[in-house]
Amino acid sequence: MAILNEHFDKLPGQYLFPEIERRVEMRLAANPELAARLIRAGIGDVTEPIPPACAAAIRAAADELSDRGTFRGYGPASGHRFVREAIAHGEYEAIGIDPDEIFLSDGSKGDAGHALEVFAAGNRIGVADPVYPVYVDTNVLAGRTGPLADNGIFDGIVPLRATEANDFLPGPPETPLDLVYLCHPNNPTGAMIDRVGLTAWVAWALEHDAIILYDGAYADFISDPALPKSIYEIDGARRCAMEFRSLSKSAGFTGVRCGWTVCPRELEGRLPSGERRAVHPMWSRRWATRSNGVSWPVQRAAAAAYSAEGREQVRHLVDLYRGNAHLLREGVAAAGLRVWGGRHAPYVWVGCPNGLSSWAFFDLLLGELAVVTTPGCGFGPGGEGYVRISGFNGRDRVEEIVSRLATLQAPA
Amino acid sequence: MAILNEHFDKLPGQYLFPEIERRVEMRLAANPELAARLIRAGIGDVTEPIPPACAAAIRAAADELSDRGTFRGYGPASGHRFVREAIAHGEYEAIGIDPDEIFLSDGSKGDAGHALEVFAAGNRIGVADPVYPVYVDTNVLAGRTGPLADNGIFDGIVPLRATEANDFLPGPPETPLDLVYLCHPNNPTGAMIDRVGLTAWVAWALEHDAIILYDGAYADFISDPALPKSIYEIDGARRCAMEFRSLSKSAGFTGVRCGWTVCPRELEGRLPSGERRAVHPMWSRRWATRSNGVSWPVQRAAAAAYSAEGREQVRHLVDLYRGNAHLLREGVAAAGLRVWGGRHAPYVWVGCPNGLSSWAFFDLLLGELAVVTTPGCGFGPGGEGYVRISGFNGRDRVEEIVSRLATLQAPA
Repeated sequence: MAILNEHFDKLPGQYLFPEIERRVEMRLAANPELAARLIRAGIGDVTEPIPPACAAAIRAAADELSDRGTFRGYGPASGHRFVREAIAHGEYEAIGIDPDEIFLSDGSKGDAGHALEVFAAGNRIGVADPVYPVYVDTNVLAGRTGPLADNGIFDGIVPLRATEANDFLPGPPETPLDLVYLCHPNNPTGAMIDRVGLTAWVAWALEHDAIILYDGAYADFISDPALPKSIYEIDGARRCAMEFRSLSKSAGFTGVRCGWTVCPRELEGRLPSGERRAVHPMWSRRWATRSNGVSWPVQRAAAAAYSAEGREQVRHLVDLYRGNAHLLREGVAAAGLRVWGGRHAPYVWVGCPNGLSSWAFFDLLLGELAVVTTPGCGFGPGGEGYVRISGFNGRDRVEEIVSRLATLQAPA
Repeated sequence: MAILNEHFDKLPGQYLFPEIERRVEMRLAANPELAARLIRAGIGDVTEPIPPACAAAIRAAADELSDRGTFRGYGPASGHRFVREAIAHGEYEAIGIDPDEIFLSDGSKGDAGHALEVFAAGNRIGVADPVYPVYVDTNVLAGRTGPLADNGIFDGIVPLRATEANDFLPGPPETPLDLVYLCHPNNPTGAMIDRVGLTAWVAWALEHDAIILYDGAYADFISDPALPKSIYEIDGARRCAMEFRSLSKSAGFTGVRCGWTVCPRELEGRLPSGERRAVHPMWSRRWATRSNGVSWPVQRAAAAAYSAEGREQVRHLVDLYRGNAHLLREGVAAAGLRVWGGRHAPYVWVGCPNGLSSWAFFDLLLGELAVVTTPGCGFGPGGEGYVRISGFNGRDRVEEIVSRLATLQAPA
């Protein structure tokens, strides 16, 4: 009798985006003329074409796969070396990450889940609240948590409260923790940690022998070179952090699918016996056992994003979205609303006025401005009272959102 | 203090392919003139270009990603519907698999590991011996086994012995089991189960409430329509089987990366509480939580493999490799060696003559014929005394192997 994983039952239904769609459809049914005006600024998906250099690389890969002499079959599980070299050179030259510390994947969502495979059950897990839900849900499905408690947090997960009081940048906790997920620039709040703040986290992790799982999927949106683009800019981070990175939001690869993890050779944990052990050989083994690597055309496209033209084209894309976020931030502020993020991130985090709930303000923005946002409560209890507006859109639509925000009649 | 997954320590080092390379290099060092003659027929990687229809689809996808109007970002986690429809139509029309029962992936290696995520620890696992090592290794890393025992089998895994006596087709065991991996056409033996044999397995699974994880990665090599290409050709299999399929070996996608699982809606297991529960919603949730779907160019290529030209081009590729395997089978038999497989499979399974071990016969074939094979002992203790020869090669090389086999001086 086959026994199923009972931990799936702990997850509530997939509620957020279906509920958004339900409310949009109800509103459209009541006001069909809204359809033509509707602007979606909810989901964090890119809208612009991939860099021409990447498209050309995909076409070249198709040619290579069509010729017996240049055909590529199975490659290394962690990616072809020339791609890992391009990333090491393009992203980490000053820091000195070795290509063999880079593991190519189909994106950060997958990597956040895969990472748990090298860790045992019983680690004490810390995640921000509000948070990108994948960190929590993958722990739940792997049986690393208890049930969802009345406070909206799964037993066994320690929430790191991101609030207005700490500028949505929780610092290291008093509670002892073993694995901590940090995401900067942050999804959903757009908050970006500075060097002092990240240094405090690294010092804390080294002191407690904890490991930081650092999600840098939005690193390209950092516009101030004084801010750390990689956790490895902080001394000691090679001994306490894995880093997730992605081409999804920078090179527009949400449909192409490519990201990577960095697993430094110095990173160690302990076996249940107490013996110290390097993570790198385990992570390598994980990839060799579970994967045959990323698609050849995708690997060619990823390397092309680090060519001279590719980098210039990626910069244009990032500038567009970041510019969008800046405009949204100004528009939200000009409407008299409280706003965070949008400086080093594609997301703008908006405080609901006059004590409105996330859903109530979502409904108001939908009904009054025909703009679809994401209710902050979808990112955990700490997101209640906020909505997220995404800068992933064409400039024309962002300008239209801004001009509509100017007309907003927020309830007194 | 972060705690690591101690089960990684149970896996022995990755020995097989490094050891093959070490022996090849030693031989080349001793006889440098061998280099020009060396033919690799070990690893199961394809050699021929992908179908032109698939290459054209990859180029078209690059064009689509280059235009704002046709750009594709995030897609459904289980794949775009048009791809799943093409597969349902092309592979399962007579059986009636619904597109929503098909989940696109980057290949069967990944899927074999992912499948464990919906099952609890404590299932009694059956795998053939010899076997594709991924089924075993993924269970080991997930902590579903004990240590490797002296007999070469991990505690908690029940080996289904595939031997000459049962034509390498073990039937259902007396031992009660909960999850059984079957692979037909088989890797490494090339054995293909018939309808009667598979019906017995399905009846056994239904009787014991067991689930069969059916790996059909080589299904396209079946040349007799009386043999079951999918387990769902057997009545009742929708209630007891998940099926893994792949375009790797048929359309030459070992570098492109695309496969799928079928999870029928009727498939059920039990929660630890004893309550029956459908697997399909859990498998859907697994994909939604862990993945953002397969790369857009890859999905376009997969659908193109089911176009009229695509199917014809795939047929040519399969005919080539299958013809290679037939030639190898005849050549091995003509050399006076015992041979299996190679009829409905790309692999030929060769008995070592005169009591030679797998490695001794590997060395003999390398030294005498300059042909690299795979020692059967790399697939488990039951593979000792055999080598696998792969038909994935150009026809010229296969003919050369056959003519060299005719000169083989096997030890008396």
